[in-house]
Amino acid sequence: MKRENILLGHGSGGKLSHDLIDKLFMKYFDNEILASQGDSSILEVGSQTLSFTTDSFVVSPIFFPNGNIGNLAIAGTVNDLAVSGAKPLYLSAGFILEEGFSLSELEIIVKTMAEDAKKAGVKIVTGDTKVVERGHADKIFINTSGIGILAENRKGISSGEDIRVGDKIIINGAVGDHGMAVMAARNELKINSEIKSDCAPLNGLIDVAFEVTDKIKFMRDATRGGLSSVLTELFERKSFGVEIMEEAVPVHDNVSGMCELLGFDPFQVANEGKVVMVVDADAAEDVVAAMQKHKYGKEAAIIGEITGTHAGKGWIITSIGGKRVIDMLSGEQLPRIC
Amino acid sequence: MKRENILLGHGSGGKLSHDLIDKLFMKYFDNEILASQGDSSILEVGSQTLSFTTDSFVVSPIFFPNGNIGNLAIAGTVNDLAVSGAKPLYLSAGFILEEGFSLSELEIIVKTMAEDAKKAGVKIVTGDTKVVERGHADKIFINTSGIGILAENRKGISSGEDIRVGDKIIINGAVGDHGMAVMAARNELKINSEIKSDCAPLNGLIDVAFEVTDKIKFMRDATRGGLSSVLTELFERKSFGVEIMEEAVPVHDNVSGMCELLGFDPFQVANEGKVVMVVDADAAEDVVAAMQKHKYGKEAAIIGEITGTHAGKGWIITSIGGKRVIDMLSGEQLPRIC
Repeated sequence: MKRENILLGHGSGGKLSHDLIDKLFMKYFDNEILASQGDSSILEVGSQTLSFTTDSFVVSPIFFPNGNIGNLAIAGTVNDLAVSGAKPLYLSAGFILEEGFSLSELEIIVKTMAEDAKKAGVKIVTGDTKVVERGHADKIFINTSGIGILAENRKGISSGEDIRVGDKIIINGAVGDHGMAVMAARNELKINSEIKSDCAPLNGLIDVAFEVTDKIKFMRDATRGGLSSVLTELFERKSFGVEIMEEAVPVHDNVSGMCELLGFDPFQVANEGKVVMVVDADAAEDVVAAMQKHKYGKEAAIIGEITGTHAGKGWIITSIGGKRVIDMLSGEQLPRIC
Repeated sequence: MKRENILLGHGSGGKLSHDLIDKLFMKYFDNEILASQGDSSILEVGSQTLSFTTDSFVVSPIFFPNGNIGNLAIAGTVNDLAVSGAKPLYLSAGFILEEGFSLSELEIIVKTMAEDAKKAGVKIVTGDTKVVERGHADKIFINTSGIGILAENRKGISSGEDIRVGDKIIINGAVGDHGMAVMAARNELKINSEIKSDCAPLNGLIDVAFEVTDKIKFMRDATRGGLSSVLTELFERKSFGVEIMEEAVPVHDNVSGMCELLGFDPFQVANEGKVVMVVDADAAEDVVAAMQKHKYGKEAAIIGEITGTHAGKGWIITSIGGKRVIDMLSGEQLPRIC
């Protein structure tokens, strides 16, 4: 390890995060399951195939337009399970609370979690609470881990092993809303943007897509690091490339405006209710049409495709026909976005 | 909720923790699995019975005699699974790091976790890392969640449904070491006590006990809140009582000395390598003998029994024949002990 201390960028979901995973966690925790590096791990337990995932939530502020840390804690883990192809079943909830944190705010968060778990059809079955002295945490951190069950015909999704040239890339709606909503909610900015977090559990939407076709070959939720990180994970070290049509990617006007103002790339801003899918070209339009009928997929669109050229690389084709490279965030622009 | 803010005692594993669980988490997260309130939840997933648990670790200091937060993160979760009767298989690891935390210390902790996972026969299969700004966490917090598989003949252990009057209560060794070792390691105390944490994964020891008998009816690891909390959970709201012979409970001299000095009850001090078992009277001596041959059970002993009198209550019989009530810690004596 060249750097001697942890930087905010190590938690960005971008290059520094990937470095830390490769050079430290993979080095010591090395095993074939972890090595697959999906957002969930796929486990054979007796005769069942399970999906297992964990996520800690440290968002600041803990309340933001259209959500709070409790919504994230459910959606984040449900989505990690759902994009692995699993049916999410059970969640754990681990709370780290700062001494002096408001019990009424805790109650709102816990209530939110219970409601969202119910909506997503999962049960919170085990938990833990730790309290640290005032000034040694920031109000509340939540870890949720989750277990889902994987159907036989969805086992290849996590690895994307069936992806072929010509497959279409789909997203279920606009990018950047969550990151910019949280950013705007930070006191120091006092921006009245009306941007709302897109935070949502996506398992229902994903089920709708699978009702249309079983030719969904890869899914990933675009959280920290945004669409760019997901696409990079998709093409990195692969024998294919990725081409994205910039104009096809939905971005709300207020989000693109705020990104421009603050110098962010909306493709690199976190989402909490967006899934990127790779789908067989024959089925892509049907999947988009089905998603558009679902409340979390109204703006679903085909945004690009898998190409046989520039293997291991991704390009964004701009509206004037130019090209730019798809790249992961290298530092940290938005600490504690989830 | 009467109190308006979170107190350190809400994380003690004692009365305030139980209040928070009953009045907030159980109220909203209510379901039949969570309601069983074991350290692990027992899940029917397809044809498998799984055990699932979560624990966050916030110990301070992160390095202490005979261990670090990494040892706790593995042992704590492995033990929660093992005492539910399950064979621990897979762990997740979620890190919350403070900006500026030393990468070399992180490497030591991660290496410790890898080594202990290997010793315990479990794999770390999924993870997550978040970084918060300097001053918004304290170096490192770790959450581990775990999945184990439960054999048909061990399903009743978690609930203790087979406990009968006359059953013996066993512990695998001395109480209070972990709590006092961490306490002594705190800079402000500068106590050179030579007390070492008992932190250890107990699944191997528990397997040894099951090789002797299948008449083990209840197990619980005595962590936060110590032996007293486990015993209280054992007899509370039950049709039987508990009687403990004070002299039979192993307590190391340096631990009892330090407890006396600081005003602690060693029965209420945290352990990280102690399991309390309820075993059929016929099998109890054999279990103790087998445990004593294992490195984590050298001081194993029968410490008391299940009684038909004083249902729902526990008594400690002192060396002079007196009785005192077994009671849970009501406040918080030792914050951030695990």
